Order: sequence, then C-alpha cells, then structure tokens
Amino acid sequence: MEQQLFIKMITDAWRAQNKKVDELLDQLTETQWSADTAPGKNTGIYLLGHLAAVNDSMLPLLGFGQKMYPELENIFLSSPDKSGQQFPSLADLKKYWNEINAVLNGHINNTQPADWFTQHTSVSAEDFAKEPHRNKLNILISRTIHQSYHLGQLAYLK
Amino acid sequence: MEQQLFIKMITDAWRAQNKKVDELLDQLTETQWSADTAPGKNTGIYLLGHLAAVNDSMLPLLGFGQKMYPELENIFLSSPDKSGQQFPSLADLKKYWNEINAVLNGHINNTQPADWFTQHTSVSAEDFAKEPHRNKLNILISRTIHQSYHLGQLAYLK
Repeated sequence: MEQQLFIKMITDAWRAQNKKVDELLDQLTETQWSADTAPGKNTGIYLLGHLAAVNDSMLPLLGFGQKMYPELENIFLSSPDKSGQQFPSLADLKKYWNEINAVLNGHINNTQPADWFTQHTSVSAEDFAKEPHRNKLNILISRTIHQSYHLGQLAYLK
Repeated sequence: MEQQLFIKMITDAWRAQNKKVDELLDQLTETQWSADTAPGKNTGIYLLGHLAAVNDSMLPLLGFGQKMYPELENIFLSSPDKSGQQFPSLADLKKYWNEINAVLNGHINNTQPADWFTQHTSVSAEDFAKEPHRNKLNILISRTIHQSYHLGQLAYLK
C-alpha cells in the first residue's frame, strides 16, 4: 500500500512536468521556440530536443525497449546548442516528443510496483547490491528534477 | 526496508538540490547575484530570497516549528521581484539560507520513516483520508522539483 502510494507520488510528479512541456508546445510560437532562452544561452528548440532525447534514452535505461529516435542523442545530448548540428523541424520534434512519451508513459503505467525497485540497466548487479537506491524509480525521480530545471529556462521564452 | 529506501531517494535528491544553491553561493559574486537571470526576469537575489522563504515555510508545513524569518514571505513569496520591496543584503540572505537549512535539514534527518507518510499541516484530516499521497514526503518531492526549476534559471547568472 505504502509502496503503491510512493510510486503514485513520483509518477504524478513526472507526469506533471511532462504536461508543462506539453502546455508550452501549445502556447509558444515557432519563433518563440527558436529564440535563446536568455542571451547566448540554449534555444527553446534545443532544450525541447534535449528533453525528448532524455525521455527516449529512458526506454532502454528502464528496460522498456530500444530508443525510438536514436539520432536525437548526437544532436541534443552529445552536442551543445549552436555547434552547427542540423535540428529537426519544430513540428517533427513535437511529433517525436509526443510519440516517445506515449510509449514511455504506457510502459510506466504498466510497471508493477515491485519492478520499480529493481535495478536500472546501467548499474551492475554488484553495485546494485550495495546501493539499492539505484533502482528504476530513482531514474524517474532524477529525470523529473532534470525536466523541471529546463522548464525554469523554457519559461523565459514566454 | 523499502520505506527507508525511498525516503533516502527523496532526501538525497532534496539535499543535492540545496547543495547546488550552496555551490552557487560560493561561486557567484554579489554583482552576479544582483543581475537579472535573463533580461527583465527575476534577479538572482530575488530567487535566492524566494528559495530561502520557501524552505522557511516548510518548517511549519512539516510540523517542525515556526518560521525563522517570517518577514521573507512578504518580500519573496507574496511580492514579485522589482515591486519596490527592500531586500536584505546578500550576506544576510546567505546567512538566513544557511540557518534555515541547518534547522530544516536537522528535522528532516530526525524524522522517523513512518512519520513521512503522515499528513502535512495544510491538508485536513478529511482530505488526507481520501488523498493519502498528500503527506510530508510529497512536500519534499514538490519542493525539490521547485528548487530545480529555479536552479535552471540561476545557472544563467554564471
């Protein structure tokens, strides 16, 4: 019971952050997304691609399957903004964001409570035995916090 | 055991965010703190006061005691930045931040596992019976996410 409660608290927080990105996608124009969030800082579209790439990378990390758009990694995770990478269009990125999240959140909804406390795929069995907090639910906590960090920056596009 | 594990996951995340603010306090000059995080947006010092006021308000909310600096509420929670409020000096705000967190985190460290799943002080017993996720640990989750949101903005002062 407490286990399910705790999972609800985290998955609710996760969904709330994703929803805030969805709301920005509804609210902001393409011109706004293309702008720097602050002078010389990351553009909105880079941060959107970055968040989409992070969510996509959660699929293998949580054992849910392969990445859907592995090409996002090089553009939005390995490379900084303004490094000459060709970005997908905003319409495509929005499509990727929605598709990745539909699949990811489908898996999240179907994950059994006990499964959240098993190790994620980038921790060894040996390390996990010593550090049992490095479980799948902890990935969801850290990615929720990470998304909020960039939402604070995306808010400056308004 | 699992209960203690997820309390550790959340309190670790909470402490990590606070530590990032501490690191910014070590790194940034007074001139940097006084600047807008982006043109026309909140200043660094306003966001620092805002985060200190939020942490202070967690003391009564979590049943740990009274606010230590209740005067911060009007300046940094009820009023927006640039509204003519007189701010404490950066040195004073840094002192408040450290003092509030020492007391708050002392209480957090001493909270018994089962206690985290009891209601916080702004939810009624009736509502809590229907919505048991509105517990003290959920406050810590939401405040961790909130702090990260503003850390994303404070990073622009660098």
